[in-house]
Amino acid sequence: MLNEELILKGELAKEAAFQLGMVSTDLKNQALLAMASSLVDQEELILSANEQDVLAAKKQGMNKALLDRLTLTPARIKDMAEGLRVIAALEDPVGQVERIWKGAQDIEVGRVRVPLGVIGIIYEARPNVTADAAGLCLKSGNAVILKGGSDAIQSNKTITAVIAGAAEAAGMPKACIQLIENTQREVTTQLMKMNQYLDVLIPRGGAGLIRSVMENATVPVIETGIGNCHIYVDCEADLQMAAEIVINAKTQRPGVCNALETLLVHERVAPHILPQLSTKLLELGVELRGDSLTRELVPQAKEATEDDYRSEFLDLILAIKVVNSLEEAMAHIRHYGTKHSEAIITESYSNARTFLQGVDAAAVYVNASTRFTDGFEFGYGAEIGISTQKLHARGPMGLKELTTVKHIIYGHGQIRK
Amino acid sequence: MLNEELILKGELAKEAAFQLGMVSTDLKNQALLAMASSLVDQEELILSANEQDVLAAKKQGMNKALLDRLTLTPARIKDMAEGLRVIAALEDPVGQVERIWKGAQDIEVGRVRVPLGVIGIIYEARPNVTADAAGLCLKSGNAVILKGGSDAIQSNKTITAVIAGAAEAAGMPKACIQLIENTQREVTTQLMKMNQYLDVLIPRGGAGLIRSVMENATVPVIETGIGNCHIYVDCEADLQMAAEIVINAKTQRPGVCNALETLLVHERVAPHILPQLSTKLLELGVELRGDSLTRELVPQAKEATEDDYRSEFLDLILAIKVVNSLEEAMAHIRHYGTKHSEAIITESYSNARTFLQGVDAAAVYVNASTRFTDGFEFGYGAEIGISTQKLHARGPMGLKELTTVKHIIYGHGQIRK
Repeated sequence: MLNEELILKGELAKEAAFQLGMVSTDLKNQALLAMASSLVDQEELILSANEQDVLAAKKQGMNKALLDRLTLTPARIKDMAEGLRVIAALEDPVGQVERIWKGAQDIEVGRVRVPLGVIGIIYEARPNVTADAAGLCLKSGNAVILKGGSDAIQSNKTITAVIAGAAEAAGMPKACIQLIENTQREVTTQLMKMNQYLDVLIPRGGAGLIRSVMENATVPVIETGIGNCHIYVDCEADLQMAAEIVINAKTQRPGVCNALETLLVHERVAPHILPQLSTKLLELGVELRGDSLTRELVPQAKEATEDDYRSEFLDLILAIKVVNSLEEAMAHIRHYGTKHSEAIITESYSNARTFLQGVDAAAVYVNASTRFTDGFEFGYGAEIGISTQKLHARGPMGLKELTTVKHIIYGHGQIRK
Repeated sequence: MLNEELILKGELAKEAAFQLGMVSTDLKNQALLAMASSLVDQEELILSANEQDVLAAKKQGMNKALLDRLTLTPARIKDMAEGLRVIAALEDPVGQVERIWKGAQDIEVGRVRVPLGVIGIIYEARPNVTADAAGLCLKSGNAVILKGGSDAIQSNKTITAVIAGAAEAAGMPKACIQLIENTQREVTTQLMKMNQYLDVLIPRGGAGLIRSVMENATVPVIETGIGNCHIYVDCEADLQMAAEIVINAKTQRPGVCNALETLLVHERVAPHILPQLSTKLLELGVELRGDSLTRELVPQAKEATEDDYRSEFLDLILAIKVVNSLEEAMAHIRHYGTKHSEAIITESYSNARTFLQGVDAAAVYVNASTRFTDGFEFGYGAEIGISTQKLHARGPMGLKELTTVKHIIYGHGQIRK
């Protein structure tokens, strides 16, 4: 039996999506600005709800990193509001005509951008996702059903009430932003199979969540975020540049999906870069795990296991491997990579070209840090996640990726022959 | 335990996809032409294999329509060959740069079209799909794993051997076209879960097949083909045009997904169009099923049930309903439609606009037959199916829909701040 809350909210969302698809850009922008103001106005309410979540999480012994993600502050609420204002300023993809042309018998066929409909977002204990995802869905004309982690339930309920209330007061259809309040795992699993109500499901969170959604969902899913990213330092690399990029990609923010996880170094340059680079990385607190050639050059490195090369550490740990060719590096990436972000550091035109063409990933870099794989850095203006699948969206997903097309056909009586 | 044939062919397909992604357009076209010639050259071999399938199917009492789809003739083999030549003549989407721009710190970001990788096609007893799907996948740089219906197994084995042999002889990577020869249902179910080998799964067939794939697959699926299509004859329609379009959409080829299934007529014009139109439809062998208002005007019509309005008849049966407004027509379509193809017949600018905006479907028509929803009629040059989902592709899918993008980033040492 489908949970009653799901059925009710599913029905309401379908109706809201139908209405929201026809709302003008101006009105949607006004709603986003109203939502932003309401977050700031209701700061105390939100903080006090958040405090309940944080206290409960501490009691249950939540680790520090997760606790940090869960905790809201006035500054973070301001950031959430500012995020909504940024979304208001972005171009509305809905209604854009991609192309219009003549088909058989001169029927005029146009491809028009339209909302996806109802989007389900399943995420973990980061309450800021609530406002962010709701804003992106609203701007792209989609009704959203949010399902946040149980640890953030009080925060999420309050944020949703605040922004959904502001949106409705600003003329948006009722129920265009809804939160599933039942936090039982079984209800989440049911949500993943609500094909009659959901047009797409976007999980935002760690590998476990993504895997669970991929395995259980019958609703079409956009897989996001898992990044076992590599940098390959080619035999013709500028070694100074290589060291700076590696340090940046590993240490600037190690807990994110576009951070470096495995360093591949050509054997010819390994002796010239690995010793000094390793010293710097160790100073920065990075634990090194290498193959035997690496450990000859870097005695402080532990032995890397097969598992290390497969791991998305999301931590100050770096796997290292010395390779004998560009081909070996590319084969390693094919075997262990998650098709997120991969980089080559080289001054060789041919090697750059071979790497760009031969590596299959959402983002393939020459001479830049993998950390740029991000909707804002790429200039998409916003980001609902980074797709690591190949269907529909690949890499950072902006507003356009939250829409689809429909064909509109203007005829004057044509019939098929 | 995963079936051995699946593992072996999955591994081979992954390797083939990697190679095929870098093959030049010219070489792919030569291979397609060679495949076309080999089909014609090996006509006798193919016909004799097909004869085995047809004999076995007759023994098992296969119905006439299915038997017709299963049966190959010299003319049909010629058509298959011609289909491959058409694909050779199409533009290659692989390598096309959609856009290149500057992101943060002037990194140069480009979006390039690349193949999806390995495509799985699950289809029923139409052996011509074997050549067609293989050709489209090859041209778009994808390795393909074909899984045809057990009734066509001898035909499919022979066709696959012929075209895969010709492709390899023409320089294509080994195993870029493979057929799963084990026809057990269990193996098909396993295929749907081969996420480690398949990038996408496209089912081509009837509602039962599509449903089974949607329910069982963990590999991303493109849903194709189910069309409960409507034509709404507005109160301001040109009734002569409406009648011609309705007759065309219902009778020109009733067994296909873009054929008309339910006719909605505004009450004001119903008395002026339904009696004569019904006479013509009955003459053409169409069975009519209507609501009470319809049956007052058309005594020959049977009573339409709730189920009739939900049905994709794929047959000479038409459900009819008299509605009191454009809004009621649109609500009916929202409730019963499958978001495939929907049409309004009207001379009213406002009603046309409301219908185009408010109806959510892959193709929305004004004053033309729904039968135009087709890759060739739309001018896409080819078609692997008609997507009725919203992710990735919607409506007729051509070569471009068999590709994805990757971001390529040209840097000169940029690191993230």
